[in-house]
Amino acid sequence: MIRIAIAGYGNLGRGVEYAVEQNEDMELAAIFTRRPAAEVKPRTPVPVVSVDDAAQWADRVDVLILCGGSATDLPVQGPKLARLFNTVDSFDTHPGILAYFAEMDAALRAAGKLGLVSAGWDPGLFSLNRLFMSAVLPRGQTDTFWGPGVSQGHSDALRRVEGVLDAVQYTHPVKSAVEQVRAGAGPKLSAGEKHTRECFVVLKDGADAARAERDIAAMPYYFAGYRTTVHFITSEELRRDHHGMASEGFVYRSGHTGDGSAHTLEYTLKLGSNPAFTAGVLAACARAVHRMAAEGGTGALTLFDVPPALLSAQSGAELRKELL
Amino acid sequence: MIRIAIAGYGNLGRGVEYAVEQNEDMELAAIFTRRPAAEVKPRTPVPVVSVDDAAQWADRVDVLILCGGSATDLPVQGPKLARLFNTVDSFDTHPGILAYFAEMDAALRAAGKLGLVSAGWDPGLFSLNRLFMSAVLPRGQTDTFWGPGVSQGHSDALRRVEGVLDAVQYTHPVKSAVEQVRAGAGPKLSAGEKHTRECFVVLKDGADAARAERDIAAMPYYFAGYRTTVHFITSEELRRDHHGMASEGFVYRSGHTGDGSAHTLEYTLKLGSNPAFTAGVLAACARAVHRMAAEGGTGALTLFDVPPALLSAQSGAELRKELL
Repeated sequence: MIRIAIAGYGNLGRGVEYAVEQNEDMELAAIFTRRPAAEVKPRTPVPVVSVDDAAQWADRVDVLILCGGSATDLPVQGPKLARLFNTVDSFDTHPGILAYFAEMDAALRAAGKLGLVSAGWDPGLFSLNRLFMSAVLPRGQTDTFWGPGVSQGHSDALRRVEGVLDAVQYTHPVKSAVEQVRAGAGPKLSAGEKHTRECFVVLKDGADAARAERDIAAMPYYFAGYRTTVHFITSEELRRDHHGMASEGFVYRSGHTGDGSAHTLEYTLKLGSNPAFTAGVLAACARAVHRMAAEGGTGALTLFDVPPALLSAQSGAELRKELL
Repeated sequence: MIRIAIAGYGNLGRGVEYAVEQNEDMELAAIFTRRPAAEVKPRTPVPVVSVDDAAQWADRVDVLILCGGSATDLPVQGPKLARLFNTVDSFDTHPGILAYFAEMDAALRAAGKLGLVSAGWDPGLFSLNRLFMSAVLPRGQTDTFWGPGVSQGHSDALRRVEGVLDAVQYTHPVKSAVEQVRAGAGPKLSAGEKHTRECFVVLKDGADAARAERDIAAMPYYFAGYRTTVHFITSEELRRDHHGMASEGFVYRSGHTGDGSAHTLEYTLKLGSNPAFTAGVLAACARAVHRMAAEGGTGALTLFDVPPALLSAQSGAELRKELL
């Protein structure tokens, strides 16, 4: 049995708890939390441990799945916990990935541990498909569309704006851009021309709505360069109407082989719950990390570096027989 | 530069010749043929060599791409040439894969060579997606649909029927089956309930049409269990109306995570030319084989065993920066 621990018991952590149950070769060893342990009530009977005491669990955990957010949790917790455990995380702030990868790599190598960073669906499964598609069809164009669906990272970003109490952000693909791409027109479109951003924001008492709206629209990387709509609503409306976690998106490549033939490849996900699905990816990655660490692997890697068979509970012979 | 050789200059071999041109880190070293070398006229200036003289090229080729058919060419040529070269092939007769893999593995190991078997789109990219989908969403159902498009393997099978001079076979997905699967109904359907087979057959002079039709419909694995239609046409009609090599298909998985959320994943290919696209997959696999052989790898593997980054001409750091 692969002994899994979870750091951070939010939506993603709860998803990993479910995912471990769906994988018969895994068991949940512990949940690490920054909150007072008594406040965290897992669905299943599993020890809840202060993250400050994590070191005591180093011999009882094979892989730690880091379930904190990319904005503030992972950059601090990741390198710290990577000194104690083999890790898997879903770091997804694209511009910060290289720096995070380097920090994790250094921490993991120093400790003789192995960690897989930036797993999930994007980065993760979408990244893999971008790689496969461009490797097998080198002359062509790849486009990724996200949504319609909530972006956790963008919702978190809204909550950091002055005057904002709570918020949810939906990413929408622009229909005309999708149509151009699917028609094989190979348009050169920025992410902001392919997507709009719709924000549902609850203000703190007495906050300046006009200023919050300006600050949101100007936020670099997250909202600048996108057509952004901001709706101000009440806390009650946010709770009632915006608790769904569904999301979807697709990767599309069109290109030509040397004989002039045109080809298109498309990879589409429609997720009832973004964190629940992401947790399933992280669990499969934990299996691969466990196996690669047992072979002596250390340092940071991504899904690009993992032989796909290592993600599956089935043996190589079973995979060749049943899935090849 | 990775020095590629091609064994067999048919549609697939010509596709590899194009694919090598689209990959700037590859060059075509030689074409091996069973035909008299003077009869083979490659599009580009490259030595054409009798396959009997292939051993003389062992030091001038990094990876040999086997472009023969799965029915009769590869089972003979594969293990023989695997004693001389690192190899890539697209062996695609599903029931024969395990035996072929074992034979190639033995030949390659004995020679200290590395070979990747059964690459292409199915087996190949579809296999990879079946693996990823089931690993990250373990509770669910995967369905694969092929077509509409020509199946080379089934066309070859028709040509082996007594009385048949030439033939082309189209695989069609059954619309109602596709709809059931996409609706998430999770139907338990056999390949024969999901597909029909349409055959365009040219008979030899004086052949018995009724008997050929019966023999075709009864052919195990290929046609038995499928709704099969046979049209008898002339050689001229076959040449005029059935030279297209387009094909398409998709892999679909629907399943649930432990919280009860439903998720669907879909991978779709629409190929203007099946052999031209397959050749692109084989070229990327040749890159991976070259790299893994340089690291000391020997024996047979499949795409399940290849770290995805090795398929790409880009470095690990470039991939993390641009595609992750």
